[in-house]
Amino acid sequence: MAPFAINQATTRPQWSLAEAIAGYAKADISGIGIWPDKLRACGLAEARRLLDRHGMAVTSYAGGELFVDRRGAAQPADFARRLVDEAAALGAACLVCVVGGLAAGSRDIAGARARARDGLAGLLPYARAAGVPIAIEPVHPMRAAEVSCINTLAAANDLCDALGGAEGGGGIGIAVDAYHVWWDPALAAELARATGRILAFQICDWLAETRALADDRGMMGDGVIDLAAMLAAVRVAGFRGLPEVEIMSARDWWRRDPAEVVRVCVERFAEIAAGAQE
Amino acid sequence: MAPFAINQATTRPQWSLAEAIAGYAKADISGIGIWPDKLRACGLAEARRLLDRHGMAVTSYAGGELFVDRRGAAQPADFARRLVDEAAALGAACLVCVVGGLAAGSRDIAGARARARDGLAGLLPYARAAGVPIAIEPVHPMRAAEVSCINTLAAANDLCDALGGAEGGGGIGIAVDAYHVWWDPALAAELARATGRILAFQICDWLAETRALADDRGMMGDGVIDLAAMLAAVRVAGFRGLPEVEIMSARDWWRRDPAEVVRVCVERFAEIAAGAQE
Repeated sequence: MAPFAINQATTRPQWSLAEAIAGYAKADISGIGIWPDKLRACGLAEARRLLDRHGMAVTSYAGGELFVDRRGAAQPADFARRLVDEAAALGAACLVCVVGGLAAGSRDIAGARARARDGLAGLLPYARAAGVPIAIEPVHPMRAAEVSCINTLAAANDLCDALGGAEGGGGIGIAVDAYHVWWDPALAAELARATGRILAFQICDWLAETRALADDRGMMGDGVIDLAAMLAAVRVAGFRGLPEVEIMSARDWWRRDPAEVVRVCVERFAEIAAGAQE
Repeated sequence: MAPFAINQATTRPQWSLAEAIAGYAKADISGIGIWPDKLRACGLAEARRLLDRHGMAVTSYAGGELFVDRRGAAQPADFARRLVDEAAALGAACLVCVVGGLAAGSRDIAGARARARDGLAGLLPYARAAGVPIAIEPVHPMRAAEVSCINTLAAANDLCDALGGAEGGGGIGIAVDAYHVWWDPALAAELARATGRILAFQICDWLAETRALADDRGMMGDGVIDLAAMLAAVRVAGFRGLPEVEIMSARDWWRRDPAEVVRVCVERFAEIAAGAQE
């Protein structure tokens, strides 16, 4: 089996969830990251049946804009809980939590951060009871206004310190996405500080000539991120799960034959894994 | 006189340097930020004559990609020194230093940062001798690959600590551009840490629906940055210069009558200044 997973966002326009599970399994991929819209189109029971048939693990379930949507409106009260329920039913390793940005018309990012902290604190008992680890995802600062006001590993670590409880761990940890954090001068120090709490590790590449703020990610090896070094650091920090390839690429990989995309992911991941061993 | 300056990038496609000096002066703007390409098209002697005639201060001279150009090639040895010479001849309050990103084909951002530090250390004696303060500009993390590998106020403060010399100050400080740093959870702490070393304060706004990584800045008041709070914080941190409006806007303000752009800058700056007093 290939020692990594693929997030289905990598083949979002090409494949349904059923097709992605079958297509990844055909390439010996043993894990998948799943998105709510795709899950709901497939149906939970059918998804569970397909995952079991192919022996495929769910490395993450994507919780986007948990508390505030992209237009700055508050999400419904049960929005995040439904995602927890679905993640539990899938047996997902974690719910990746992207908290949302600023309220519409607001310039108060400190206030947005306080509300996100309170929202996570409110969700945590429910997630703990459901057995779903909450993985806070720091999102690139260029999306702070409309996707997430949590923009650094330091901020995610601070939240884990504050919410994780005295026992440590406490059902809350971090989703490290290389795309969002590669630039951070505190990267090494904050990955070390995250030891024992990294619940997901997502990889792609940052293209030197990035053209857009969304959906312009690169295939591993085509950009500037030292992914081998980051994989090694995440392993040292105790992450034992499957790294998850997640490439949203409107101009390139979303236009290709998805079987080819998966094949290239396998090749490129092998290069990173070899580099991380050195 | 209006208590702020305008960086000529705000009217880049519309006005030459001569036109910008005259156009800003007509609106009672008392300072200008100048770019090398515009200066060289005008000629240094003519620029000096026009600045004197209009009694206009030069709040910054823009030093872009000082050590590595946008394609990752090393700049010529005399590239940065020529900018220092020009800044000195203009009597600019500082040379705003954007250090450049990664070398072509490199994934070593730590190495790029070390080279930038060495480059600044090498330039500093020359700049001190010329009487030109070096203002390190932290640039938004979304431009780390190709514009600057110095991406946080913390990194700029660290460089000032390392290079500023035991006497403090030492001819090196920071250019704070609201657009680049507004998202930073450490903003307040790092502005306080920068007390006495803020050499330039540039303002515009971050549009909630930013469409591009370059040249998509907003007019003050049209976006999500709490500019009044930031102006107040920068004042508390000892900045006594003229705040400088710098709006690169390919889709909007660059398409308008430049006199109208200047008029709106005056209106919007007054709102910010009033808010900062509260």
